[in-house]
Amino acid sequence: MNSGQGPDRRESRLRSLRDRLHDERIDGLLVSHPPDIRYMSGFSGSSGLLLIEPGLATLFTDFRYEEQARGEVGESISLVIASDGLFDSLAERLSERPPGSRIGFDPAATSVQDRSELERRCGTAIWDPVSGAVAELRTIKDPGELGHIEKAVQVAETAFDETLGRIRPGMSEQEIAADLIHALRIAGSGPLPFEPIVASGPRSALPHAFPGPRVAERGDLLLLDFGARVGGYCSDLTRVMVFGPAQPWQRDLHEAVNEACLRAIASARDGIPACEVDAAARDFLGELGLADRFGHSTGHGIGLEVHEAPRVHKREDRPLVAGNVVTIEPGVYVPGRGGVRIEQDVVIEAGGRRTLGRSSTNLIEL
Amino acid sequence: MNSGQGPDRRESRLRSLRDRLHDERIDGLLVSHPPDIRYMSGFSGSSGLLLIEPGLATLFTDFRYEEQARGEVGESISLVIASDGLFDSLAERLSERPPGSRIGFDPAATSVQDRSELERRCGTAIWDPVSGAVAELRTIKDPGELGHIEKAVQVAETAFDETLGRIRPGMSEQEIAADLIHALRIAGSGPLPFEPIVASGPRSALPHAFPGPRVAERGDLLLLDFGARVGGYCSDLTRVMVFGPAQPWQRDLHEAVNEACLRAIASARDGIPACEVDAAARDFLGELGLADRFGHSTGHGIGLEVHEAPRVHKREDRPLVAGNVVTIEPGVYVPGRGGVRIEQDVVIEAGGRRTLGRSSTNLIEL
Repeated sequence: MNSGQGPDRRESRLRSLRDRLHDERIDGLLVSHPPDIRYMSGFSGSSGLLLIEPGLATLFTDFRYEEQARGEVGESISLVIASDGLFDSLAERLSERPPGSRIGFDPAATSVQDRSELERRCGTAIWDPVSGAVAELRTIKDPGELGHIEKAVQVAETAFDETLGRIRPGMSEQEIAADLIHALRIAGSGPLPFEPIVASGPRSALPHAFPGPRVAERGDLLLLDFGARVGGYCSDLTRVMVFGPAQPWQRDLHEAVNEACLRAIASARDGIPACEVDAAARDFLGELGLADRFGHSTGHGIGLEVHEAPRVHKREDRPLVAGNVVTIEPGVYVPGRGGVRIEQDVVIEAGGRRTLGRSSTNLIEL
Repeated sequence: MNSGQGPDRRESRLRSLRDRLHDERIDGLLVSHPPDIRYMSGFSGSSGLLLIEPGLATLFTDFRYEEQARGEVGESISLVIASDGLFDSLAERLSERPPGSRIGFDPAATSVQDRSELERRCGTAIWDPVSGAVAELRTIKDPGELGHIEKAVQVAETAFDETLGRIRPGMSEQEIAADLIHALRIAGSGPLPFEPIVASGPRSALPHAFPGPRVAERGDLLLLDFGARVGGYCSDLTRVMVFGPAQPWQRDLHEAVNEACLRAIASARDGIPACEVDAAARDFLGELGLADRFGHSTGHGIGLEVHEAPRVHKREDRPLVAGNVVTIEPGVYVPGRGGVRIEQDVVIEAGGRRTLGRSSTNLIEL
């Protein structure tokens, strides 16, 4: 399987970005958001700046990452180990350019303070905001990237199965979380993409509940929202179970959300506006009188970040396209009682879509 | 023990901040960095904005965090649940102020894009950069905060002891990391402050090595850099061991770094410039001809973030003051062979300093 980080992929990404620079008459682009740097260069450290010019790409990092960077970036990118701060090295490099060179920066990833510093230290350049140039490339996954995401889904499913065999009433959310995290790491996950949500009983009605001291009891709903990271790429799944036989209201809630999830997935395909996929879930829940209990959007892109473009949102009218990988995760929350969210990871294809992984979303009775 | 998040503490923090606003003739301050929001309001969710005005403090968050926010913020802060984005709700609130009100924002925590959005949506306000107003308050820990950090050190030490009993040659770095992470969570850590570093053999010479597939062998150095989080507050420790009897070069390296660490700790006290604490470690390693193998700074503040002010850096001439909590973590790295870093967490006191925790930094032979 192609790693998605190989020199060919990297060359083609650099080419796409340089085409955009050329179109916008920009002489260089400063990439500062770490996932963007990783996508363009392969470098996975947390301290770096990447300057992309027409004939050259330069990664600035520091002493701590020298050996790692040499192993990761390959030959198409030259490496500068900054001894006195990345901005100083960047300024030195830019001072070699003719005055008045137009250098793009990402306004969403650059703080007001850093922009002032850039202007102060690299004052002969003209700093132009260029929005989402790398983020846009990242929305279309190539086969290597998709392979990593599929593997991350598989690792999450393996860990979930392992954890299912261990959890029982009387365990606290924190204990369940510790077991799930351990299983994710042993199954092959790198640093987790996010702190798993483990919410039992009425706490399952909190869409973003961190695991707490509450002890899960017989009859409780238990919601797990978790993911793995493989080769830098994330998965993101949500499953719901009940300790003991499900009560009718739990079963009804689960069936409604599961059907909403299936309808949204079935609607997804190359060319459909993202808001229509959101509507497929939202309208169905609306028919059941549950729309006001579904307060978040239907999904989001996943890749090197666990939340990235495109959004599957009621006001996002841009179309999904082949190669997008998104979550579909409707949820219904009844305060004081409990909530159900079901989340799948889906790749958009020319004629439709494919759900990643093999695990069922049926209500699990433990 | 005071939780550090109680209403009294919060009132006194609001008062300190309002004094600064008054001095700078600012009518309100927008707090957007999540740890700053948590410090000022108690709210620990990831989506929020906090507007502090002379007579009022308002937290803007969304549907997902409503119940959590109501439980966390208490009565001194009013809550707005945004239905259409936090900026829209903020703009509505600011439109009630007289035109020309001066509102501060943190230039280090506000992106160029967000600043443009603020100006577009809340155009009747004058937006003024106000640097580090909350970060500065956060450098002085009160007894409740110190209690959380001490507990986080204790949890990390308990987990380390537990892990020491399990690790042996033949385990991969990833397996050791999975065990360490599990032990941290079971011992009582919340979401980990950072991905632990587990580096064996020559990989210990990489200051920021993520755990990889390498299997630890007899004779290897093994470096663990890890921390816990309790009540939101972080600990950060580094310990080094060797599988089997230490070879002379390993023992010498460890002794040099341990002595550098002790000297830096012994030099720390209220009023000493941070660069002098850095120099205490650096000069000693220099006498041994190892200064060029110590490429990072000696330490950093810890609190709600694992890296925060103050820095213990060779060019930081501001003094440490009582209530600062910093790491002291010299390291020496020999490429291709191995490295040693030893890290302690230290609270600065009026007459000196106190090392948190009770575990030894001696070289451990397993």
